[in-house]
Amino acid sequence: PNPLYAAMPATIFEHMSALCRATGAINLGQGFPDDPPHPALTTAVARAMTERSQQYPPSPGVPELRDAVAAFYGRTQGLALTRDHVIITSGATEAIAAAILALTSPGDEVLLFQPAYDAYAPLVRRAGAVPVFVDLHPPHWRYDRAAVEAAISPRTRAMIVNDPLNPAGTVASAQELAMLADVCTTHGLFAICDEVWETVRFDGRRHASLLAQPGMDARTVKIGSAGKIFGATGWKIGWMVAAPQLAQVTTRAHQFLTFTTPPMLQWAVAEALADDAVTGELHARWAQSRGVLNEGLVQAGFAVLPGVATWFTCVDLNASGIALDDRTFSDRMVAEAGVASIPVSALWEGPGPRHVVRLCHCKPPALLERALAAMADWK
Amino acid sequence: PNPLYAAMPATIFEHMSALCRATGAINLGQGFPDDPPHPALTTAVARAMTERSQQYPPSPGVPELRDAVAAFYGRTQGLALTRDHVIITSGATEAIAAAILALTSPGDEVLLFQPAYDAYAPLVRRAGAVPVFVDLHPPHWRYDRAAVEAAISPRTRAMIVNDPLNPAGTVASAQELAMLADVCTTHGLFAICDEVWETVRFDGRRHASLLAQPGMDARTVKIGSAGKIFGATGWKIGWMVAAPQLAQVTTRAHQFLTFTTPPMLQWAVAEALADDAVTGELHARWAQSRGVLNEGLVQAGFAVLPGVATWFTCVDLNASGIALDDRTFSDRMVAEAGVASIPVSALWEGPGPRHVVRLCHCKPPALLERALAAMADWK
Ligand SMILES: CSCCC(=O)C(=O)O
Ligand SMILES: CSCCC(=O)C(=O)O
Repeated sequence: PNPLYAAMPATIFEHMSALCRATGAINLGQGFPDDPPHPALTTAVARAMTERSQQYPPSPGVPELRDAVAAFYGRTQGLALTRDHVIITSGATEAIAAAILALTSPGDEVLLFQPAYDAYAPLVRRAGAVPVFVDLHPPHWRYDRAAVEAAISPRTRAMIVNDPLNPAGTVASAQELAMLADVCTTHGLFAICDEVWETVRFDGRRHASLLAQPGMDARTVKIGSAGKIFGATGWKIGWMVAAPQLAQVTTRAHQFLTFTTPPMLQWAVAEALADDAVTGELHARWAQSRGVLNEGLVQAGFAVLPGVATWFTCVDLNASGIALDDRTFSDRMVAEAGVASIPVSALWEGPGPRHVVRLCHCKPPALLERALAAMADWK
Repeated sequence: PNPLYAAMPATIFEHMSALCRATGAINLGQGFPDDPPHPALTTAVARAMTERSQQYPPSPGVPELRDAVAAFYGRTQGLALTRDHVIITSGATEAIAAAILALTSPGDEVLLFQPAYDAYAPLVRRAGAVPVFVDLHPPHWRYDRAAVEAAISPRTRAMIVNDPLNPAGTVASAQELAMLADVCTTHGLFAICDEVWETVRFDGRRHASLLAQPGMDARTVKIGSAGKIFGATGWKIGWMVAAPQLAQVTTRAHQFLTFTTPPMLQWAVAEALADDAVTGELHARWAQSRGVLNEGLVQAGFAVLPGVATWFTCVDLNASGIALDDRTFSDRMVAEAGVASIPVSALWEGPGPRHVVRLCHCKPPALLERALAAMADWK
């Protein structure tokens, strides 16, 4: 077997969720809501299954969903897109895999910002390219131009930018986006923008995509996820958005990874994307539960790091007066308090912060209250 | 972009189906039934959506489906499998991609038999490995030991065997399977067995997997597809079956390609797999329509090549008295007669047969009659 996979463990998310299933611990590790998806989605699937074909849709996706994604970004982010910009994938993970395989060649270097979603580095390596890490530092996890420039070599081909940032919940500023775009255009880099958290934002501001920055149009693949937008993480509908010529290339990688994605789920997502009431309802629910977790944590004496987006809240263990590293904290809290979290160092290679853990807040308030009580007792 | 994808066209299947959508031609190209999937499947999905979680299932698949696949192969092929042998993927294409990425390393050689499904060679190349082709020859497309041995080098790592064989519809004999297994064990090769057509067989015999051959247990990844078993090609539920230690490695590749697959579809497939009446019904329907196409072709003066499996029938143009190469025939027939087919040379690199086209027979008999009438008129 390939040594990369032979030596690889299950992901930290999979590990924590399996532990929770085995022990009954409350799962604030892997990011997913416990609620069923909005009924608009499930009703639409049931209808599509009786009225429409369940055979192969076109490999780039059903036209209705490609149109709906283009319209959604027009309405919510001011992007001028057509169907030809949009390639539907079997979840954002497939979109990330397809974009990396399509845009890199063996020997290329790819800039990754740490903390980094755990799929990036293995995919870059299996594509034959080399991940080069640029560290972001808590509590603000800002992008520093000097650090970015220092990581660039003549072999740098692309950067992967996750904005809003999982696990931190922070969002790049207008200045940071302009800087990243300037670096890409100056050095001729592609940007793979994992923007799956774009709609999960609690500061009332609208998402600004790196794709919209000057000069980025022909060099950006923007990745989105219906699972995040609709709190339906098992649906596995994602997409890549790129200028049509670039989309043509990334769709070739997609055609040999999954070929296509269940059409009944695609049609349902297309309908739901057109209805702002659906996303509005979910958003209100998530804002409420986020408040419950964040206030409860502060009351229990945990230091909450600033964040405005994603389903996650990060806790600073040092500032909380807890003298454990993040892995030990997570392992002990799930075993002793029955509450799972994600140690942020699991999303980091080499030396880095060891004092930050991530908790998922998009859960029923009553469950969060139980988790908070258990954590307070245990602390 | 990566030059492999930059220069790559859409697949022949995608091309032909797009042509049919645009022109209204009858689509006997891409392989899919026109009927809706068996109601057992759609009813079960609707139920799962109201009763069970639609959030992330475990990355290797829901336990119920892993168990059901193991039991299905126990019942229908005499294989002794457990849940730990089975990894669920987003269609067989993802399974093929994950197996190739997991089992090969840059510089390895991989034996492919031509005609070869169009995903194999690009995936092998993007994995950094080198496809080495062994040609099969019509009308019987037999595996020849001398030709296989001649293609092996010290760098050969794996072979990909598609049995039953798409496009030919032929099945490897017991002697051929024993020979292929002996080659694998002698030379220390992995076998990636694309057996998605295992249940679509019209000779009344049960499928024999390369996995069951002596010495193959720890070196085989067997790939299957619910889309083929149930005639639901848009569902995109596939799997890899391998010894648990090998499955552990291939699931790592899967976790970073799609991570997981919609749980409601997985549960529905698990239920349907347990019910032999479902597959029996579909099989009877497909046997009937296959008879309609094959007899109609012969009556219209087309020479039908022998085949006992898959949704496809191959026509020998030379023996039919047609002096066109297969691409010209397919292009002209779809344009002039309004019937799409697949030129078999599209599944071939380098010099090879240019006189065989493939037609899909799992269509409503009335549609097949219309196609046959149009083909007879046009011929
Ligand atoms: C695919 S499992 C990880 C899900 C997720 O986005 C997270 O928990 O960070
Ligand atoms: C994924 S499109 C090709 C479908 C198929 O198996 C075929 O037509 O051969």
